Amino acid sequence: MNQHISIVLCETSHPGNIGGAARAMKNMALSRLCLVAPRRFPDNDAYHRASGAEDVLDSARIVSNLPQALSDCQWVFGMSARARSFQWPTLTPHQAAQKIVHDSKTQKVAIVFGSEQAGLSNEQLQLCDFHITIPTNPDFSSLNLSAAVQVMAYEIYQAIEIEELPDKATVYQIVGLIEHFMEMAEALDFFNPLNPKKLLPRIKRLLARAQLESEEVNILRGFLKCVQQKVDR
Amino acid sequence: MNQHISIVLCETSHPGNIGGAARAMKNMALSRLCLVAPRRFPDNDAYHRASGAEDVLDSARIVSNLPQALSDCQWVFGMSARARSFQWPTLTPHQAAQKIVHDSKTQKVAIVFGSEQAGLSNEQLQLCDFHITIPTNPDFSSLNLSAAVQVMAYEIYQAIEIEELPDKATVYQIVGLIEHFMEMAEALDFFNPLNPKKLLPRIKRLLARAQLESEEVNILRGFLKCVQQKVDR
Repeated sequence: MNQHISIVLCETSHPGNIGGAARAMKNMALSRLCLVAPRRFPDNDAYHRASGAEDVLDSARIVSNLPQALSDCQWVFGMSARARSFQWPTLTPHQAAQKIVHDSKTQKVAIVFGSEQAGLSNEQLQLCDFHITIPTNPDFSSLNLSAAVQVMAYEIYQAIEIEELPDKATVYQIVGLIEHFMEMAEALDFFNPLNPKKLLPRIKRLLARAQLESEEVNILRGFLKCVQQKVDR
Repeated sequence: MNQHISIVLCETSHPGNIGGAARAMKNMALSRLCLVAPRRFPDNDAYHRASGAEDVLDSARIVSNLPQALSDCQWVFGMSARARSFQWPTLTPHQAAQKIVHDSKTQKVAIVFGSEQAGLSNEQLQLCDFHITIPTNPDFSSLNLSAAVQVMAYEIYQAIEIEELPDKATVYQIVGLIEHFMEMAEALDFFNPLNPKKLLPRIKRLLARAQLESEEVNILRGFLKCVQQKVDR
């Protein structure tokens, strides 16, 4: 069970949703739940919906406001509906999960969910480093609270599985691949360092999406080595 | 709303889960729901949990067995827990969603969920072309039914958004990129067609994962063109 990622539920109205969230968390190997001013808790409805995740409810921290919930966290992600009047760094669940899993190796991370009726207030959202928006049908965008927790917990579990792939390329390998590619791009006059345009950030973005395996990096490095031999000749 | 993808719920015990599934579907722009021998339906609990997705419940088809539910479908995906005694093609939700979205452009697709207590029976699973397993905590693997529907509906919506990216590369562009790469690999003696190993399938798999944009294909083709000029010289 991951001890560095907390799910924080603010002012939840329906205890059934707290139970549903606890079950979704445990399904995805998360166990740290914090409740900010829940309307009814502990409650039978919560325990009923948890069906097997009662331990998550039993160990939940209950606090009276969001700053208290976040007191020991370095990184805070807040769930937000699409349209907000102020700009803020906004990620999809998939993007956020990569960052959450990476950051949680060394630091404590919280993911904050608002109430069923109103979501997070602007004041609460401004306590967050990043906002997460779940892409939805624009005509019916409000997910059930425990369903939203399920989506985030699912993406986090997938991100952990990818991070733990035995064959996943290391950051060191990816950096080596990028450098080698850029050298060859310059040697072939494909890339002019005095007029770089956006080649480097585009390549980085592409590789972040591709999540290369170690052997794939070796294949691409092998290809670039052959290009290099041609260039050097 | 997508008209070619159906969600089929078999022998659901709790009408609340039917309502939760309907809400999850509408959030992700799915509307075709089929209920196989639901224990209680229509029911107030279902309508209560749907909160805004009553139209999905109103238009649900109710049938008495799974073959009836699948009568007009070409492709059937069944949700399955990890451990099964028989082998079957099994996909993650992410992999399945790519295939479902692609196939549903021209054909009808069903995604089948079993009962809360027992999941799908072996007989029901054998009516499916593919099984889908949601990766979970091995010690607590059973998701709530509507949470499982939410995960699948979410992945399908993400897959539709990727398919609809205005800049997403076409299959034609990707095939062109692969051919150009393989030509250069051969010209550079990186690849020997008489001893191909697994270069081509590995490159195809990598590119399927990377979901390249049109402009990214252009960048990589530009690089390969420079390699080609060096080779031809």
